[in-house]
Amino acid sequence: MEDKAQIQEAIKIQGEVVRKLKSEKASKEQIDEEVAKLLELKAQLGGDDGKHQFVLKTAKGTRDYNPKQMAIREKVFNTIIGCFKRHGAETIDTPVFELKETLTGKYGEDSKLIYDLKDQGGELLSLRYDLTVPFARYLAMNKITNIKRYHIAKVYRRDNPAMTRGRYREFYQCDFDIAGQYDAMIPDAECLKIVYEILSELDLGDFRIKVNDRRILDGMFAVCGVPDDKFRTICSTVDKLDKMAWEDVKKEMVNEKGLSEEAADQIGEYVSMQGGMDLAERLLQDQKMSQSKQACAGLSDIKQLFSYLQLFQVTDKVVFDLSLARGLDYYTGIIYEAVLTQAGVAPVTNDNQQGANTEENVSVGSVAGGGRYDGLVGMFDPKGRKVPCVGVSIGIERIFSIMEQKAELSAERVRTTEVQVMVASAQKNLLEERLRLVTELWNAGIKAEVMYKKSPKLLSQLQHCEESGIPLVAILGEQELKDGVVKLRDVATREEFDISRAELIAEIRRRTSEA
Amino acid sequence: MEDKAQIQEAIKIQGEVVRKLKSEKASKEQIDEEVAKLLELKAQLGGDDGKHQFVLKTAKGTRDYNPKQMAIREKVFNTIIGCFKRHGAETIDTPVFELKETLTGKYGEDSKLIYDLKDQGGELLSLRYDLTVPFARYLAMNKITNIKRYHIAKVYRRDNPAMTRGRYREFYQCDFDIAGQYDAMIPDAECLKIVYEILSELDLGDFRIKVNDRRILDGMFAVCGVPDDKFRTICSTVDKLDKMAWEDVKKEMVNEKGLSEEAADQIGEYVSMQGGMDLAERLLQDQKMSQSKQACAGLSDIKQLFSYLQLFQVTDKVVFDLSLARGLDYYTGIIYEAVLTQAGVAPVTNDNQQGANTEENVSVGSVAGGGRYDGLVGMFDPKGRKVPCVGVSIGIERIFSIMEQKAELSAERVRTTEVQVMVASAQKNLLEERLRLVTELWNAGIKAEVMYKKSPKLLSQLQHCEESGIPLVAILGEQELKDGVVKLRDVATREEFDISRAELIAEIRRRTSEA
Repeated sequence: MEDKAQIQEAIKIQGEVVRKLKSEKASKEQIDEEVAKLLELKAQLGGDDGKHQFVLKTAKGTRDYNPKQMAIREKVFNTIIGCFKRHGAETIDTPVFELKETLTGKYGEDSKLIYDLKDQGGELLSLRYDLTVPFARYLAMNKITNIKRYHIAKVYRRDNPAMTRGRYREFYQCDFDIAGQYDAMIPDAECLKIVYEILSELDLGDFRIKVNDRRILDGMFAVCGVPDDKFRTICSTVDKLDKMAWEDVKKEMVNEKGLSEEAADQIGEYVSMQGGMDLAERLLQDQKMSQSKQACAGLSDIKQLFSYLQLFQVTDKVVFDLSLARGLDYYTGIIYEAVLTQAGVAPVTNDNQQGANTEENVSVGSVAGGGRYDGLVGMFDPKGRKVPCVGVSIGIERIFSIMEQKAELSAERVRTTEVQVMVASAQKNLLEERLRLVTELWNAGIKAEVMYKKSPKLLSQLQHCEESGIPLVAILGEQELKDGVVKLRDVATREEFDISRAELIAEIRRRTSEA
Repeated sequence: MEDKAQIQEAIKIQGEVVRKLKSEKASKEQIDEEVAKLLELKAQLGGDDGKHQFVLKTAKGTRDYNPKQMAIREKVFNTIIGCFKRHGAETIDTPVFELKETLTGKYGEDSKLIYDLKDQGGELLSLRYDLTVPFARYLAMNKITNIKRYHIAKVYRRDNPAMTRGRYREFYQCDFDIAGQYDAMIPDAECLKIVYEILSELDLGDFRIKVNDRRILDGMFAVCGVPDDKFRTICSTVDKLDKMAWEDVKKEMVNEKGLSEEAADQIGEYVSMQGGMDLAERLLQDQKMSQSKQACAGLSDIKQLFSYLQLFQVTDKVVFDLSLARGLDYYTGIIYEAVLTQAGVAPVTNDNQQGANTEENVSVGSVAGGGRYDGLVGMFDPKGRKVPCVGVSIGIERIFSIMEQKAELSAERVRTTEVQVMVASAQKNLLEERLRLVTELWNAGIKAEVMYKKSPKLLSQLQHCEESGIPLVAILGEQELKDGVVKLRDVATREEFDISRAELIAEIRRRTSEA
């Protein structure tokens, strides 16, 4: 516990910080953060009434999901899991934290974004940064050499959150991977088929899947005269081509990374190329490119891949794009990324401060990505035994954002429950009868609700149905009880009719079966 | 980075620790833990070949779920979520970590079990300890005054893991709560109805639901002469009655907690009482008990509760038991706990070291519990506005353990995929034809697989079906292709017959619709 005077001093300083930020017109996000710290300090001190004041918020970069968001989330998951299951995938789960050591050396520069747990005695632990490294750890630990699995779970990155664009510090990943020694490009093609199916089914608008190969990139760098030790850094500059113009990318290569202008221009020529199997064939004949054995291996695989994609009927959306260069260190072969091409369904981008895309026709960002990583599992195996893997990660948070936006714009209300019928009463003192009836319905598997009041008003019971989209009301009154019937009301049409208790359950099922 | 010599010194010391433990015949768990630390140190040093040696394990007290465990988990979740939805519940989700302050002061002594995150700059964070406190924070933060919601998610406790008994440091909680100002005991009764439905549907064997009320306990302590400041500590001793004999509980009260023998004996009389509505009526007439206003309020509510439970048709399993005293500080009214009463389906208990139950007929432990907590939300509201809540938590990890054990014992194999058909070939070089057919099936929504080999052996394709329970094989050969048919094989019966490509999809659906 800190001393009271110390806290008061800290409050004074923090107050200055907030005032300064406000006077400097800092971003709302920044000010909010400092205000939260101030409130926290004040809370430590306690209010005048001695009552502890809480800061009522979730941790920075995280959010609650309310019932409406959960309903949308469930729908999206059902579509995606349905596709994974159609392709015969099993599922696994791993703990939310791993030994710190398990994550060490897997993420390059991004390692600084890993959340560590406090050392409270015992092992040093970190929150998982993605699902791929735990998957590789799982395979090595259990000596599994082939599996087709999906894993949907939250991962954690101490990144600068941009929540308006669907970027959080806690977010879902949704991964499908095929591990095992198989004939080239068959599992790789299935991953692309899966992306195609999911994006089509979710109906997010038109999309494109860009494909490239790590070996083609490396070969290209070699034949363009990039020094070996600059491959990675030049690659990460190429990766910015989806957000920056070529001119700026070139400037970065030449001015910041010290590449010769000539080499940069040669790269510029290649990375502007897009096509299909034909482009791969052309590049295999390319005087320069064909000098690289690596590039040729990659190009042959791209050809093979497209032949399978034709059989899978997905070539209309797939494009071989030499500018695609995904960041992660562990990719060894094919890489791919899916982008939505309709600007209209983009996640809200109202953080102008960061100079976000303002053009109309830019791609609205990646909604899936992945590739082949044949070396990762071997990093965990004591004997270095390799298990070739290829996988795809669905950018589920961005998809949630888009679906939420669509739901906002749509006239249709999102239901957050599946209740089929409300057991109501127009008269007082019929609670027991309502409870008896709702028990009958529950026992028959009908989704039903009753108000937790002894004598609720009929109007408020009907209002609840309207608000939560419950389609039917079963109304009980003295007369109905005498006659052994229930008055069934259709909420949408307001039609009402009596039905015998014996027939009620079948009638409710009949009327709600299409829902 | 530590110095090499320092690490070598640490390895030496840690080696001593391990040797000492072994010589002392310490528990396997303890030794394993220290050995892991030793390996970790050695790994830091690097092997002779300069290759980094990883400790391949999950964090202490956590586990991976393999596909078989996931299949069981999915089945259990479906049953439970089905019940929650039948009762009209919405669902929400909250972040895995909260501001540390949010959890402060909610768990009494158990606060030491909270996992904190490392201070990496910014807010102080802790992993959630349960789902109830985040729920209360959510309600207060969003000013929600009534909701019926379920939340299934993992929570974290730095407890001593007893994984053989299904006790982990990372484990699922599965909560259903009703928040809102309603007429007494109606939502409380629905919570018990839900426990009854879930335990019946999961078919875990016979069970009992014990019910008591915090106010009855407090009233009982008062009339038995327990000093006010000893209520909580005596209550936690009473809570041990399900694991300890009355004699030992009494000893703890008198010898350790300084209660008079007379007071202890009076408590002993009450806590041996079990019954139903009749017992509540009797106690309302009890000379001593009736002196406590609190106890009378609780007893009247128990009476009311039982009248609703009768309407819900669940009184055969519910018992009013004055010895039930759940630990958590935040309960204010009704409390309850469900226990399985058949010893046969108990989770494996082979950790004798902890002196676990060895008797035959003791209850095998709680599988659900909950109660009313009318004050918790108010702790988060700046103005202290209260939102009455009642809820239940299903002990899902224990249920997983039991279901896994049942699956082990059962002859039926647990399927980990839902694949309906495998597209196979008896001849070489038919990969393209297989891919064409599997695409047709996928596009029709059939769950189908194909081997990722150009020319797999028919036997290995059939073997895969046997192993993973795929019921059908669609076999392609030159002849079938010529005839425009597919040979469909029933894996179980080995029956084979030709079917036209046009009729294939309907036939697969027909044969796998009951699955």
